[in-house]
Amino acid sequence: MTIATALIQCIAGKDKAKNLDSARSMISGAVGRGAQLVVLPECFQGEYAVKQFAANAEPASPGHPTYDMLCETSKDHGITLVGGSFIERGADDALFNTCCVFEDGELLGVHRKLHMFDVDIPGGIRFRESSVLTPGDSPTVIQSPRLGITLGVGICFDVRFAEYADYLRRHGADVLVYPGAFNLTTGPAHWTLLGRARALDAQAYTLLVSPARNPSSSYKAYGHTLAVDPYGAVLQELGHEQGTVELEINADRVADVRRMVPLAGKRRAW
Amino acid sequence: MTIATALIQCIAGKDKAKNLDSARSMISGAVGRGAQLVVLPECFQGEYAVKQFAANAEPASPGHPTYDMLCETSKDHGITLVGGSFIERGADDALFNTCCVFEDGELLGVHRKLHMFDVDIPGGIRFRESSVLTPGDSPTVIQSPRLGITLGVGICFDVRFAEYADYLRRHGADVLVYPGAFNLTTGPAHWTLLGRARALDAQAYTLLVSPARNPSSSYKAYGHTLAVDPYGAVLQELGHEQGTVELEINADRVADVRRMVPLAGKRRAW
Repeated sequence: MTIATALIQCIAGKDKAKNLDSARSMISGAVGRGAQLVVLPECFQGEYAVKQFAANAEPASPGHPTYDMLCETSKDHGITLVGGSFIERGADDALFNTCCVFEDGELLGVHRKLHMFDVDIPGGIRFRESSVLTPGDSPTVIQSPRLGITLGVGICFDVRFAEYADYLRRHGADVLVYPGAFNLTTGPAHWTLLGRARALDAQAYTLLVSPARNPSSSYKAYGHTLAVDPYGAVLQELGHEQGTVELEINADRVADVRRMVPLAGKRRAW
Repeated sequence: MTIATALIQCIAGKDKAKNLDSARSMISGAVGRGAQLVVLPECFQGEYAVKQFAANAEPASPGHPTYDMLCETSKDHGITLVGGSFIERGADDALFNTCCVFEDGELLGVHRKLHMFDVDIPGGIRFRESSVLTPGDSPTVIQSPRLGITLGVGICFDVRFAEYADYLRRHGADVLVYPGAFNLTTGPAHWTLLGRARALDAQAYTLLVSPARNPSSSYKAYGHTLAVDPYGAVLQELGHEQGTVELEINADRVADVRRMVPLAGKRRAW
């Protein structure tokens, strides 16, 4: 059985309502073409910028526009929706980078970004997410009753950690999903390589979903939303403009790869 | 301080003495061009074939031609020599796929391949190393007193295991060295990707050293001896003919990359 999957590379500007509308509209388009599983990018409802995080933040609970849009859209269309991420305002005003996963209007799980994006590359980019965000404290593995597959969820910098992907695999993930917004320094150097590496090691479909590049934003997203098959081959990769990757996910392919090159039983530890 | 490094893509045929001579001759050539650290490929002294393993096997100890050649060559040239691998006859006639590392005639360490190469790819390759070989039981991290760097050693299929590379990194490796002989099925699909993935995750130089392809062997090695820098970029990659990769290894580059994108302190475990 295959699962029609859509990865939405929408654009985020300063106007949150417009960003939500844009995402909803692209989801509707993908559903019209048959999508059952839809993935949005990191920070799809507000610009990715440390100074903007607090202004865009919302609780991850009913009665708030981002949560409600995701919940209702998944219900209206009867789909499984990995809601990219938005900045969540939690208890004591702590801010998290958070992904909510819905199916048919039901919240299946929540992932809070575990590894903060702190880099300092001379001549490239300097960014300190940890100056304003709080990391989550648990891994996120989500079984989809309707699709019959298991999703492992990470956000952006989480993709740099092979041990996290391995945790997800060990706990049953057939598909690794990473909403992420790399930049023009680390994107060309590492984005596709990381997507392929995680897929090959975990022998799982790996989906990296970026916002489109917004020329008027201070943070220039790399884009290049990417789907990799469980054997490490790139299935599709976008450029930096708005667009949608559409692919078929087949759980049998995961099983085949794991049978052809059996890694799980051979892992050693010291 | 940089370390002149040579990766020797020599060819192995049926004649062991000729294979040893060929390796020695290419080492001498590289040393003549300044090499201080030299790496040989997997199974450089005999054809890579399950049926040949026992015939080519030797104890990994003085008084046996392969061990002696490696020891003497490292002493004569005053180099650090990662001796690729050969089939080692151990206690009770158990066979191992073994790498001996020498410096100035002194044995610094021994790595026995940890993960057996058992694959079954329809239309591609079927191979069961575990039908004749015994896996080693411990990871191999080797400090070089003369070079002032730390080597993490794996052999071929070991490169598929991110957790092993992570062990090596945690125990101080600046350079990951994998003598390996991929084939024409998994080579094009995975060899370069694995080299780059291990380098990027461990933020370490990663060296994959293959035998040249021997048209008259049943096992067709992929070749493509490869050097990757700690940021994941391919420095050099050969084709399938005999040849030598020569590169400079710079421990400062490892430290720079780990400072620019600090991963070590952020790793999480559950």
